[in-house]
Amino acid sequence: MASSSSSLSLSQALLTKPTSHPSPSPSPTHLSLPTRLRQNPSFTSHRTTALSHRRRHPTITPIRASVSVETLEKPTADASLVEKSVNTIRFLAIDAVEKANSGHPGLPMGCAPMGHVLYDEVMRYNPKNPYWFNRDRFVLSAGHGCMLQYALLHLAGFDSVKEEDLKQFRQWESRTPGHPENFETPGIEVTTGPLGQGIANAVGLALAEKHLAARFNKPDNEIVDHYTYTILGDGCQMEGVANEACSLAGHWGLGKLIAFYDDNHISIDGNTEIAFTESVDSRFEGLGWHVIWVKNGNTGYDDIRAAIKEAKAVKDKPTLIKVTTTIGYGSPNKSNSYSVHGSALGAKEVDATRKNLGWPYEPFHVPEDVKKHWSRHIPEGAKLEAEWNAKFAEYEKKYKEEAAELKSLINCELPAGWEKALPTYTPESPADATRNLSQQNLNALAKVLPGLLGGSADLASSNMTLLKMFGDFQKDTPAERNIRFGVREHGMGAICNGIALHSPGLIPYCATFFVFTDYMRGAIRLSALSQAGVIYVMTHDSIGLGEDGPTHQPIEHLASFRAMPNILMLRPADGNETAGAYKVAVLNRKRPSILALSRQKLPNLPGTSIEGVEKGGYTISDNSTGNKPDVILIGTGSELEIAAKAADDLRKEGKEVRVVSFVSWELFDEQSESYKESVLPAAVSARVSIEAGTTFGWEKIVGSKGKAIGIDRFGASAPAGKIYKEFGITKEAVIAAAKELI
Amino acid sequence: MASSSSSLSLSQALLTKPTSHPSPSPSPTHLSLPTRLRQNPSFTSHRTTALSHRRRHPTITPIRASVSVETLEKPTADASLVEKSVNTIRFLAIDAVEKANSGHPGLPMGCAPMGHVLYDEVMRYNPKNPYWFNRDRFVLSAGHGCMLQYALLHLAGFDSVKEEDLKQFRQWESRTPGHPENFETPGIEVTTGPLGQGIANAVGLALAEKHLAARFNKPDNEIVDHYTYTILGDGCQMEGVANEACSLAGHWGLGKLIAFYDDNHISIDGNTEIAFTESVDSRFEGLGWHVIWVKNGNTGYDDIRAAIKEAKAVKDKPTLIKVTTTIGYGSPNKSNSYSVHGSALGAKEVDATRKNLGWPYEPFHVPEDVKKHWSRHIPEGAKLEAEWNAKFAEYEKKYKEEAAELKSLINCELPAGWEKALPTYTPESPADATRNLSQQNLNALAKVLPGLLGGSADLASSNMTLLKMFGDFQKDTPAERNIRFGVREHGMGAICNGIALHSPGLIPYCATFFVFTDYMRGAIRLSALSQAGVIYVMTHDSIGLGEDGPTHQPIEHLASFRAMPNILMLRPADGNETAGAYKVAVLNRKRPSILALSRQKLPNLPGTSIEGVEKGGYTISDNSTGNKPDVILIGTGSELEIAAKAADDLRKEGKEVRVVSFVSWELFDEQSESYKESVLPAAVSARVSIEAGTTFGWEKIVGSKGKAIGIDRFGASAPAGKIYKEFGITKEAVIAAAKELI
Repeated sequence: MASSSSSLSLSQALLTKPTSHPSPSPSPTHLSLPTRLRQNPSFTSHRTTALSHRRRHPTITPIRASVSVETLEKPTADASLVEKSVNTIRFLAIDAVEKANSGHPGLPMGCAPMGHVLYDEVMRYNPKNPYWFNRDRFVLSAGHGCMLQYALLHLAGFDSVKEEDLKQFRQWESRTPGHPENFETPGIEVTTGPLGQGIANAVGLALAEKHLAARFNKPDNEIVDHYTYTILGDGCQMEGVANEACSLAGHWGLGKLIAFYDDNHISIDGNTEIAFTESVDSRFEGLGWHVIWVKNGNTGYDDIRAAIKEAKAVKDKPTLIKVTTTIGYGSPNKSNSYSVHGSALGAKEVDATRKNLGWPYEPFHVPEDVKKHWSRHIPEGAKLEAEWNAKFAEYEKKYKEEAAELKSLINCELPAGWEKALPTYTPESPADATRNLSQQNLNALAKVLPGLLGGSADLASSNMTLLKMFGDFQKDTPAERNIRFGVREHGMGAICNGIALHSPGLIPYCATFFVFTDYMRGAIRLSALSQAGVIYVMTHDSIGLGEDGPTHQPIEHLASFRAMPNILMLRPADGNETAGAYKVAVLNRKRPSILALSRQKLPNLPGTSIEGVEKGGYTISDNSTGNKPDVILIGTGSELEIAAKAADDLRKEGKEVRVVSFVSWELFDEQSESYKESVLPAAVSARVSIEAGTTFGWEKIVGSKGKAIGIDRFGASAPAGKIYKEFGITKEAVIAAAKELI
Repeated sequence: MASSSSSLSLSQALLTKPTSHPSPSPSPTHLSLPTRLRQNPSFTSHRTTALSHRRRHPTITPIRASVSVETLEKPTADASLVEKSVNTIRFLAIDAVEKANSGHPGLPMGCAPMGHVLYDEVMRYNPKNPYWFNRDRFVLSAGHGCMLQYALLHLAGFDSVKEEDLKQFRQWESRTPGHPENFETPGIEVTTGPLGQGIANAVGLALAEKHLAARFNKPDNEIVDHYTYTILGDGCQMEGVANEACSLAGHWGLGKLIAFYDDNHISIDGNTEIAFTESVDSRFEGLGWHVIWVKNGNTGYDDIRAAIKEAKAVKDKPTLIKVTTTIGYGSPNKSNSYSVHGSALGAKEVDATRKNLGWPYEPFHVPEDVKKHWSRHIPEGAKLEAEWNAKFAEYEKKYKEEAAELKSLINCELPAGWEKALPTYTPESPADATRNLSQQNLNALAKVLPGLLGGSADLASSNMTLLKMFGDFQKDTPAERNIRFGVREHGMGAICNGIALHSPGLIPYCATFFVFTDYMRGAIRLSALSQAGVIYVMTHDSIGLGEDGPTHQPIEHLASFRAMPNILMLRPADGNETAGAYKVAVLNRKRPSILALSRQKLPNLPGTSIEGVEKGGYTISDNSTGNKPDVILIGTGSELEIAAKAADDLRKEGKEVRVVSFVSWELFDEQSESYKESVLPAAVSARVSIEAGTTFGWEKIVGSKGKAIGIDRFGASAPAGKIYKEFGITKEAVIAAAKELI
């Protein structure tokens, strides 16, 4: 995490799992193959007919096979080999799901054509370095169809998905889990599965590219230059988070975002007609996207190619390519039905499908000509990366400073001494709301952290998140770093996950009122699971926000995040603790942090420190000796002040009182037993906690004999001081509880 | 809650707070008033100009003042009196916010014209019985603008909002809290504030009307017949939950849903141009709505009236009336800016606004002619209800059975003996997944509960939620009770809140995988806060779902809901407990219930019972005497079986072991101290809990000396049995822990 060498190869070190598989056989046997790979014509047209009944396409001109198609990237294979490759993808998916007797064969069978075109003809990547910075990004938003991507990574030569991995699909510790996991499988950019997240992540990836390109590209050297592709299904389209993110993508004009909508009309409950009859085309046009319709996604390869070409030509808008496909294409009895969505086909139907598609091979077999055809991606990928490295060397010569900065973003090198920028405070510093102190920290860090960027869900002036030295990231000012998310919390979180996972050195933050984490919890959980170090700046963190009332007052939220794995829940009490929370958040690049911050003013307390925050819980004041106080008062955030005041009064009465700030339970848990004992000695059972939130979970800290003061009901609309008093979150309550226990 | 008398007047009893205000003075003093109430012309046109630059309106024909406008409902006031009434609304809002020095004056000032037209000219309601069944429903989705609605309720004569209530705006225990709360203020249909929820609630209200109308209306007697109106702002429009719900509203063809979009271009961060440049018109047309644009919402009363007329004429689609307004209309220096959104105007600007709008009155004053004009709503409302009661009497004579059923829905009378329909099980009953047992319960209840309706977010066949005796609620089959929500969890929850709050006897349920409560937590929290007894059927409740992996496996979710106020988190272990969970859920009409249900098969255990579930925690087996077992093993849901098996083994070794099912923490908390002591005696500190989820919070139950077995990391993709073993959620782990403690 500290400043490191100038080598770019650190990105290689990001390969989180060693690849221990043996190399492929050096002289593969050649097989003679039938070339009669025409599919059943019944799959090619009936969807289009059905379609015309039910959806309006007011202005979309469909791409037709008769349109003259220029070759897109490289003419790579004749038509029969393409179809053989596509069927290879289909059968790898069929076979893996069949072996696991679990999984989703329908999407890979329907999307194999677009998958093939993307990974074999269009995308630029290096199979031997999945973390090459300038690679095209691909997100399977419809993550349940992950066998599509595993098959593609396998064919393309990624070490993470060997044949034995495919055979371990959905098994314990395999690299082919049931949904794509970025932390398990190099080549997977983001974890998907929960619908709608992936397309929103893709918006974040495309934002990151546009931002970095604007910051670093030079007229003579466009060092940042890649596309972001995604496949999303009907399910993703129905999710609100997708609409939020796509509205922003249109607003920002993310022209290098190309989304394939797998329009197969089938979801788990059957035909999408039962719940989804909107015109997606009209909606996306309204959102400011370019929309293309490929009517025959099952065999219309040239149409898919032409659509991608058209999409790339439209530089000021993201493109949605609606590709009408048949789910489970090739299965004579199950295609175009929900039965092929989420279950193995069954031996009988697998046989029927093999027969139908003319596929004579054993399970998991990749025909030699297909293998040979795809094998070029290893040298070509190496060449792409080498060319880019040469380009970077040129760039470095000419633009030394920018090159160093870009390198630090690629390799996640924080500038040496960055933490010295954090402000510090004394008890004499003026009282202030931690949301304001947060803004001081953000603005101090913006000067030293080139990867810091972010914004608020339309509450910038309440969350205090504007970076004053930068303007707004907008369509025409993409080098700026203040992101305006609008009132779209869920999309905001998912977009930030995409930014964080684009480049290890990007440090996205996002903000709203703490209570509205309820709107974005799906995205926050994925930050935690997929190790995206997003910083969540959550202000108005208690009843202390006052008059806005119970809909706006978090009660259960601290507990609900303390219960979530791999996330840091931080509730700083004053200036030094806010700085400490930022130090922790910046250093934790592989887990997200949530900062709960006050709306109301808080004094700077004697004894608080950045170092203390790093330990999660620590003593801020103590008049006892021998690690045996009469009582320990424990507070967090805005209530630490109350604990400190109660201690003052109790000490005046001769009591030996320790005050502990418990800013992060997770960090405290990670300390040594001896440190924990030094703060919360087992022998002292007289413990009182105070926090303006639920007492749920506090038994762990105060013990069976202690007392937790908190709020186990919804809040109320009134001035903050009044609510504190009525709810008994007071110094007097702490003193009374302490006296009962001493 | 039990079967009751046939009186309709029970709905009156739903008035949750007594109205203790004195009656208005019988002879109000007449004041002589100026009639020069022309507003500043600068407010009438500039928005339209700005608009034409930034939004596309491809097909929407704007309503223009020149269009010949037929009188809508009743010609009620001359133009100057209308404007005076509108300014009264504006100044009540201004004055209340000013007095509180907190609140949102901008929306009420801009939306006063549409608010006036709705409450004074269009809506049918009875101020003296806010719970009259056939009233038109109104939802202020932009809940921060609640002074608009409080002012309207005040003028209309609702007892809940007297002048002294307006003066107590945002104060402790007032009936005019900072956001509208249905449980505080009769006349408020649903709690709003968190953006996007209200429009989704409105979809639920309109669904309920369409459903009940289809079930109960007769060609000669349309006993169910009302509209649902809502006002939403730019913020609501950006939220994904709104898009989800509006997509469904279009799909269902909810023609009696009329939504006013307050298109004022200002949100908290400034001009919406910074984050919101989509064409809302195109999007809503894509969603299947009828869209009308009122270009001048500030003074275009006839345009507003004409738009409502047009909306009512379109019977097969919901209508969005985009009303372009000026936020803070009338304030010479702050209108059309974010500064008027969420803060008091300040004394100086209040004066300037009074001058600008020609308003000579003291704060909170309602001019006598305005008062007199509005006073007709009390007799008219009484008449409307009396007419409807007469209509109902006719209906009752002719359609006795239907009338009784409708009455039971209006008054929330559960049929006598309904709970006898709940299935019961013995240990000999076949092992089954609790999701399947849930389906047996739902289908048994559907036969006896006329108010039960619901569905799944595209997982009906996984959640097992289909009611076999009914078809799908669809546009043309609205009397059916299976609702197909599509993959829209958040919209689903919010729509169910609307259904629940439409009529006390409606019992909506909705379903998805438990982990996806993360997507709908915003709506679930509002169920809890606003006392909507929605039943959340949440299957696949642990790592027991197996191969789908960590994105699908809930870990922290049980804890996160146990921490939430006013909600029941139930995790039944087998058939009897599932029946018990349904009994509890149905009886709790003023708090929501979440049922966490297994994907995997579970045996029916000896000792489980419906009565046990009602107590939250209870002993299912015990070989000890004198309330002093050697150890207490505590399990929930699928892990209760493991606890029972561990007990069997321990007993064979001579130990005295109690097994406790802890199906609902909240219900257990509500039991008497002596009951709690009988289950978990304080003297027995040897306690082991087992639950396939986070251990967070379990210290409260097992105590400092006990041991909680659980999972404090994310899950994994593998067959369920394998994961249980690898994660140590096993009988062996329970036995080992118990032996350590004994």
